[in-house]
Amino acid sequence: LVIEANGFAPGHITCFFQICDAPIDPLLKGSKGAGFSIKHGVITRVQVTPSNHSSVEISINGKSCDAKVTQTVAGLALDLALQKHGQEYDLKIRQEMQIPVGAGFGASGAAALSTSLALNHALNLGLTKNKSAQLAHIAEVTHKSGLGDVIAQNEGGVEIRIWPGAPGYGHIDIIPSACNFAVVCGSVGKLETREVLSNPEKRKKINEAGDRLVKELLKDASIDNLISLSKKFTMQTGLASQTIINTIKSLEDSGFNYCSMVMLGQSVFCFVSEKDSKNVCDIIKECMPNGVVFISKIDNIGARLI
Amino acid sequence: LVIEANGFAPGHITCFFQICDAPIDPLLKGSKGAGFSIKHGVITRVQVTPSNHSSVEISINGKSCDAKVTQTVAGLALDLALQKHGQEYDLKIRQEMQIPVGAGFGASGAAALSTSLALNHALNLGLTKNKSAQLAHIAEVTHKSGLGDVIAQNEGGVEIRIWPGAPGYGHIDIIPSACNFAVVCGSVGKLETREVLSNPEKRKKINEAGDRLVKELLKDASIDNLISLSKKFTMQTGLASQTIINTIKSLEDSGFNYCSMVMLGQSVFCFVSEKDSKNVCDIIKECMPNGVVFISKIDNIGARLI
Repeated sequence: LVIEANGFAPGHITCFFQICDAPIDPLLKGSKGAGFSIKHGVITRVQVTPSNHSSVEISINGKSCDAKVTQTVAGLALDLALQKHGQEYDLKIRQEMQIPVGAGFGASGAAALSTSLALNHALNLGLTKNKSAQLAHIAEVTHKSGLGDVIAQNEGGVEIRIWPGAPGYGHIDIIPSACNFAVVCGSVGKLETREVLSNPEKRKKINEAGDRLVKELLKDASIDNLISLSKKFTMQTGLASQTIINTIKSLEDSGFNYCSMVMLGQSVFCFVSEKDSKNVCDIIKECMPNGVVFISKIDNIGARLI
Repeated sequence: LVIEANGFAPGHITCFFQICDAPIDPLLKGSKGAGFSIKHGVITRVQVTPSNHSSVEISINGKSCDAKVTQTVAGLALDLALQKHGQEYDLKIRQEMQIPVGAGFGASGAAALSTSLALNHALNLGLTKNKSAQLAHIAEVTHKSGLGDVIAQNEGGVEIRIWPGAPGYGHIDIIPSACNFAVVCGSVGKLETREVLSNPEKRKKINEAGDRLVKELLKDASIDNLISLSKKFTMQTGLASQTIINTIKSLEDSGFNYCSMVMLGQSVFCFVSEKDSKNVCDIIKECMPNGVVFISKIDNIGARLI
C-alpha cells in the first residue's frame, strides 16, 4: 500500500527585509519586508508506505542526498502521523529544483513547503494550508536557512510582510498587480545568509532600513514604489558586490529600470515586458559571464498540491 | 486623459456559516464558516476621467443600472482619491456577470471586489490588496448583501473562515487540494439573505451549527470532511427546499456524493471529475427543469487585476 502525493512551492525573491528573530518560539520568529514569488520553484513527489520503523530517503534532481531542512519537515510530519494513526512510515521524497540553490531564490523554503504539503496529503494529516506550512517554517528557522520565505511562498504574489512569523502567525498583504510581465533573474552564486544574519553591524543597517521601507511601501503599495525602495535598501545596506552594482547599472542604462538585487544572493532580478525579456537576459549574461540566467513570471497562487 | 483598469473577482459558494454581525465596526462584522471560490465571477472594467464634479455610471452586462453595492464602493474610492490627489473624477464602470445574481454565488461581493481593485489601480490610490478589499467588505456589510464572501473571494481556494471580519481583520485558512475536479452548479433562484439573517430562530440554528462545524472542519481539513459537514449543516438548519433535497438525493443515487446546498440560494453544487461533469449537469437539469446549470472550477488565485 503505497500512497503518493505531489507538492509545488514557488521560488521567492526578497527585495528588502528586517530580521525579527528575537522570539524563542520558532512560529513567532520571521522577518518583515517585501518580495515576490516566481513560477520557478520546487516540485516534491512523496511516496508513503506503512512500516515498522520510520525511514526517510531524499533525492534532489535524481541524486540521493541529505537535505537537512526537508529532513526536519519529514520528521515533524512523521511525528504527527504517529500521533494521529499510531503508525510509522517509510518516506521516499524526490525533489526537482527549478531554481539555483543558496542564491537568494528561496530554494530551501520551497523544498520544505512543497514537502510539508505533499506529506500532509499522503499521510492524511488533515492539516490546513497554514498549519502544514508551519512545519516548513519551523524547519527553516531551526536551520537558519531563512526567516520570511515560507510565509511568502505559501501565499504567492508580490507581498509585503507586515508582521513576522510563520503562516497563521505573521501578517502578509499583497501589492495588486496584473503580473503581465516577465521576471528575469541572474545569479553568480551565494551570499552567506548565516554570516550576514549574525554580523551585528550588518544586522543593524539591515534592520533600520528594512523597518522604515516597509512603512514607506504601505503608504503607496505599487510595483513602482517597491522597485524604488528595493534599490534604496541595496544601496543603504552595502550588501551589493561590484558585479551586482554593474549589472543593475547596465540594465538601467538600457532603459530597464525595474531591477534590483535579490536578498540574500549574488543575484539580480528585472521586471520587463515579455517581448524585451530576451534582451534583458543578454545584458545580464554580459555582466555575469559565469552566472545562471533564467526567465520566470510572478506566481500568484502560492504553494499547492499538484 | 482617461485611465482604464480591469478587475476580476471569483464567485463564491458558502457551504456553512455562523453570522457574526454584532460589532458596530463594519470591518469587524463578518461570518465564520467554510466555502470555496470558483472561476466564474465578475469582470469589472473602469474608466476614470478627472472632472470638476464626481459622477458614477454603472452598467451590468451592457445595461445601465443602479447597483447599490458597487455604487458604495465607487463612493469610498472617490473619497480616498479626493484626499490623496485633491481631484474629483467621472467613473464609468462596466461589469460582466458570469454567475447568477442573488442565488448564493457571491455576485454582489465579486462585483464590489473587482470594482475596488480596478478603481484602486485606475485612481492610483496605492492601497494593498487587503485595504482595497476592505472597501468592498464595507459596502457589502452596509447593504446587508453578504458577510463572508469578500474575505473569501479576495483569497480564493477552498477556505475556512476561522475568525470573522474584513480582509486584514478576519482570519482565513485554506483546505489544501490539487483542485483537479469540476464544480457543477445549479440554481432555481433566490433565497432571501436579508430575511434569513434577521429571523431570530433561523439565526440561532445557523449559528449553533456553523460554530460547531468550523471546529470539526479544523480537526480534519479535507475536502471529504468539508462535504460531509456541509450536508450536516443543510439538514440541521432546515434551509433546503424540497427541490434542493431531491437534487442532492438524485446526485447521490447516481454515485455523485460530493454535493451539497449553496448557502444562501435555491442552489446546489457538486464536485466531480471533469469527465463526469456533463453527466452531473444532466442530473441537475432534470431535477431543476427551469434552473440555470453551469460547470466551473475552483479558483485558487482570488481577486486580481487583469
